[in-house]
Amino acid sequence: MIRFFVKPEEMFSDFFVLTGENAAHAKVLRLKQNEKVVVCDGKGNECVCTVSDVSPDQISLVVDKRQASAAEAKVFASVYMAFSKGDKFEHVIQKATELGVKEIVAFPSARCVSKPDEKSLKKKLERWQKIASSAAQQSGRGIVPNILVLNSFDEALLRAAQSDIGILFYENEQSTTLRMALQSKSYTTISLMTGPEGGLEEKEVTAAMIAGLQVCTLGRRILRCETAPLCALSAVMYDSGEF
Amino acid sequence: MIRFFVKPEEMFSDFFVLTGENAAHAKVLRLKQNEKVVVCDGKGNECVCTVSDVSPDQISLVVDKRQASAAEAKVFASVYMAFSKGDKFEHVIQKATELGVKEIVAFPSARCVSKPDEKSLKKKLERWQKIASSAAQQSGRGIVPNILVLNSFDEALLRAAQSDIGILFYENEQSTTLRMALQSKSYTTISLMTGPEGGLEEKEVTAAMIAGLQVCTLGRRILRCETAPLCALSAVMYDSGEF
Repeated sequence: MIRFFVKPEEMFSDFFVLTGENAAHAKVLRLKQNEKVVVCDGKGNECVCTVSDVSPDQISLVVDKRQASAAEAKVFASVYMAFSKGDKFEHVIQKATELGVKEIVAFPSARCVSKPDEKSLKKKLERWQKIASSAAQQSGRGIVPNILVLNSFDEALLRAAQSDIGILFYENEQSTTLRMALQSKSYTTISLMTGPEGGLEEKEVTAAMIAGLQVCTLGRRILRCETAPLCALSAVMYDSGEF
Repeated sequence: MIRFFVKPEEMFSDFFVLTGENAAHAKVLRLKQNEKVVVCDGKGNECVCTVSDVSPDQISLVVDKRQASAAEAKVFASVYMAFSKGDKFEHVIQKATELGVKEIVAFPSARCVSKPDEKSLKKKLERWQKIASSAAQQSGRGIVPNILVLNSFDEALLRAAQSDIGILFYENEQSTTLRMALQSKSYTTISLMTGPEGGLEEKEVTAAMIAGLQVCTLGRRILRCETAPLCALSAVMYDSGEF
């Protein structure tokens, strides 16, 4: 069913009038009277609705029933990705959202070539949050993942270490696998942290260990900086019983 | 170490002279005398070499030792992807190669919007094989995955069913998970088949079951046609002990 995200405070109503981008989207999709759609607050609550009226100016919906979103992953997975060049972060936002991530966190690291300045960051964050919202809509999710930007590598370590399992993936790690980390304890929250194009510096890896993160390999092949987080996230979703 | 792929028949020599694209690539990388590089036949055999001479016209290498490639996945995984729009197939070739796939197979299915004609196909195949080769080089692989194009959906089913485990992923399947399929028997070869943007037709899913494929879900979220094969491949690599 087609999904529309509205603000949480709008969810209490028994009917909806689609406005703004939702109305434009509904027009493109050529919604018809009596069609069923889902209205969602992006926080895990949904209303199944029937299209009651389609006029050139507005599209009206009547709520049939309310339900908790059924498509959310059981595990609260966070992806921490170092600032990268081009549209790689946007790529990861879209794909990680489909795969069921709960938050995506960008952070600086020593070999990052590209760090957006304060001014462009605000615009980028808006754009990134829109990509997450649109991917959540398309994949049928009930929650729009949060996009966060941190100011330092240490801040990222401290935050990631608060999860049940916090992992930093490092291409020079050879013995500790993701599987070992996932089997080390039961988890409902997990943080998956990956480095930039140029890789991580050894002192960053040491700092991660001191912060309490596990340093793991993703196998003997070198993954690009945009492939690694999605590979790890897919494996975690598989390991935690999603498919 | 930097990797160069050469033709298998060139591998018997005790020294190499880099030519063509390899020479151009070596120039870009500014290879220096005494640097160590790997020359690989793309079939799993490697030579560790020392750069013996760098002149404007040619770069010469001397073989130090020969070895089997250590970065290849134990499982022989094939990705079967329905023809898709835009550059999605190219995206999957690059990423699946990094993740360790052995072959990537394109096939037509009922709701495919885009099917390349015979003439453009030959050019495309060349391009696709180059993408695989370049991704294999970057990720440190010893084998360049094969790119194949099949003429019919049934041909894809027959071929995929010859693996130890053959799976068709279907968004309307709710009970059989990838995990169930992977636990159904031990496997050294596996085929992962996914549909086009518009999804699979029910009769195609029935045909897959008759052909002996298992029909599985990849979870409760709808994955894009380029996300599904990479998610499944990541999970299979994890399941088979790669990381």
